Amino acid sequence: MIEEAKLAKEASLKLAVLSEDVKNKVLLDIAKEIEKRKKEIFAENEKDIENAKELDESLVKRLKLDDNKIKEMIQGLKDLTKIEDPVGKTQETVELDKKFILYKVSVPLGVVGAIFESRPDALVQIFALCFKSGNASFLKGGKEALNSNKILHSIITSVTDKIVENATTLLETREEVGEILKLNEYIDLMIPRGSNKFVKYIMENTKIPVLGHSDGLCHAYVDKDADVEKALKVVYDAKTQYAAACNAIETLLVHKDIASEFIPLIGFMFQKNNVEMRGDETVRKIFDMKKASDEDWDTEYNDFIISIKIVNDVDEAIDFINKHGSKHSDMIMTENKEIAKKFEKNVDSSSIMWNCSTRFSDGFRYGKGAETGISTGKVHARGPVGLEGLIIYKYILEGDGTVEEYSKKGYTHKKLDKKWEE
Amino acid sequence: MIEEAKLAKEASLKLAVLSEDVKNKVLLDIAKEIEKRKKEIFAENEKDIENAKELDESLVKRLKLDDNKIKEMIQGLKDLTKIEDPVGKTQETVELDKKFILYKVSVPLGVVGAIFESRPDALVQIFALCFKSGNASFLKGGKEALNSNKILHSIITSVTDKIVENATTLLETREEVGEILKLNEYIDLMIPRGSNKFVKYIMENTKIPVLGHSDGLCHAYVDKDADVEKALKVVYDAKTQYAAACNAIETLLVHKDIASEFIPLIGFMFQKNNVEMRGDETVRKIFDMKKASDEDWDTEYNDFIISIKIVNDVDEAIDFINKHGSKHSDMIMTENKEIAKKFEKNVDSSSIMWNCSTRFSDGFRYGKGAETGISTGKVHARGPVGLEGLIIYKYILEGDGTVEEYSKKGYTHKKLDKKWEE
Repeated sequence: MIEEAKLAKEASLKLAVLSEDVKNKVLLDIAKEIEKRKKEIFAENEKDIENAKELDESLVKRLKLDDNKIKEMIQGLKDLTKIEDPVGKTQETVELDKKFILYKVSVPLGVVGAIFESRPDALVQIFALCFKSGNASFLKGGKEALNSNKILHSIITSVTDKIVENATTLLETREEVGEILKLNEYIDLMIPRGSNKFVKYIMENTKIPVLGHSDGLCHAYVDKDADVEKALKVVYDAKTQYAAACNAIETLLVHKDIASEFIPLIGFMFQKNNVEMRGDETVRKIFDMKKASDEDWDTEYNDFIISIKIVNDVDEAIDFINKHGSKHSDMIMTENKEIAKKFEKNVDSSSIMWNCSTRFSDGFRYGKGAETGISTGKVHARGPVGLEGLIIYKYILEGDGTVEEYSKKGYTHKKLDKKWEE
Repeated sequence: MIEEAKLAKEASLKLAVLSEDVKNKVLLDIAKEIEKRKKEIFAENEKDIENAKELDESLVKRLKLDDNKIKEMIQGLKDLTKIEDPVGKTQETVELDKKFILYKVSVPLGVVGAIFESRPDALVQIFALCFKSGNASFLKGGKEALNSNKILHSIITSVTDKIVENATTLLETREEVGEILKLNEYIDLMIPRGSNKFVKYIMENTKIPVLGHSDGLCHAYVDKDADVEKALKVVYDAKTQYAAACNAIETLLVHKDIASEFIPLIGFMFQKNNVEMRGDETVRKIFDMKKASDEDWDTEYNDFIISIKIVNDVDEAIDFINKHGSKHSDMIMTENKEIAKKFEKNVDSSSIMWNCSTRFSDGFRYGKGAETGISTGKVHARGPVGLEGLIIYKYILEGDGTVEEYSKKGYTHKKLDKKWEE
């Protein structure tokens, strides 16, 4: 596997300097090939489905490739060609002196590793994100999707091999995940796709930087100055619009002064729609519901369940969220700007919403065109991450026989608008 | 130690929202206290020197605090107050729709760990960088500097405690470095300061992201189209101006067509100034020098030694650098723009110099005001890193009762010039 990683590293140097036109043509050619060979894809996918049938129904659902999934794959590839190439952009230009200019220019990371469970469409998506951003991809799919992944990957390489060999590598499934996680010398970033437990395992077992999130324990805080109608609509949406999503809320905090008005109203809405509520003692005096245990405040249900707590003020809400949250997405409902700003400033999460739903925390909704993941880490990239998460920069300094002794003379350090020329 | 790390995490939430004025006043107050209590500092430092005397002379040199070092410390603190606060800056604003706006705003990382050897001035410098950028600092110095570190840290906390308790933590020296490296749940970034070996150890033994470099194996390539006079000046500077620095060159690559002219000239300059040369066979036919072994091409001398090799063209130079370099800083000397651009584009290093010395690769010279380190890593921050390396961002989304169902309507995704208001 180290041999394959070395080849990927070599390929990454070539991918890093491909032009946008070449990269876009490759993506479109792959889209065409997928369309042309979809019967082959379905046949291979059918083998995986057969093997999985005995195992698990929800697994079959994730594995299954149909006309719609193929259409989405193809559309995804086409959409990526419309996103601006993130490579080679001048991020900053500083004049150190006349004829002595420093450029900060965006470049790909190098080799991006991705480990994913079941969904074969993830393979195409992650490859495409890496390729568009000039990175080599080092992929490992689940055993259960072996045949589907193989045919998709061979379609991809039938196009990429003509441009750069080893642009993408699909690892044999018999090789261990643990082995990949040790390749920190060759892999610059790891993207895991799968269950929370799976992502947590990856994060805890590698020195490679990981872009992802293992938890999505999001909160809504309804302030005393909330507009009740808006708050009902947004809190209900944030819980129920897609309860299994990482950006759905799990805990509702309500200011004590508005609790007796707000809790019965949202309580009836939840009750009517079979959302199970679990409350602290004070909440249960207002509306009948299950008792919340201490564990509830640290639980991501990913289901039609919500825990509800009354707080004294916005400060208590902030402290509670910083203590129990997963730094993913948290919202406040209030018409009081001062309170809202305090919340925005003090909650230590990657996305903070004021008077809108946590469900918006997403790369496409944020306008990134594509999403490589949502990161709850603190370095490199945070929150919904687009192609910029697969990019870093290098400095290019251009002089005219300039030596360091010169520095005694002093620098101008003037920002310029000038772009680095290729 | 976990208890202390938790307290640091709590403190970091308070530090994150301090105003620039408060932070600058703290830095200036610390500067005053250091000046006022310098006799105490010298007395404590003297104890460390006494203990070290039996050990190692160069260690004593690194440990020793004198009037000049104190002046530098104080100046460093004052200089930091003049650098713009990196926190709370709007990096991007996107309108998703009318009355629905997304802000990307810079925030501190949280807790920054630093482990450093011998130099007690490193403690003050790293604390100050962290504090100015709103981060808590979790510091561990060497046993040999115990007394100096303690007095300096107590002077710092005599000021910071009045603002935020546990803003900075100095660990007892009896606690193991290995323990800190396991605190990835609490420490967001690790900055090591010490020998290459020390930094390498840190990098290899923690899951905390590390900002630093363990190697500085830098190259100069003299192209056939180089201006010989400029090339002599710059190559000589890059090797000799400060040979122990990480951004000094270790290997010189020369295009075959210019070798017989350039090598004797630089050879005489090096010879005259006692720079030991080690060459491949072809080089040695041109100028008498020691024979280079295979190992030489992968060795960072940090000394008045240079290895010299002849290459066929810029492509061979690029391949050689990408294979043997440490991705730190590499330079090309040429008057041929096309060749220079090829080199700039294809060399995978954090700094690339055209017609100027690798010695410029440095935070102050790049105009960052302060340097937290030079990073050869690929994520988060690369090359010379200023305060921006201690900063990340969060997203703040402001709506007006906006729910996700809304997204069916479509987004405007228009970039705005609007700044987030605190």
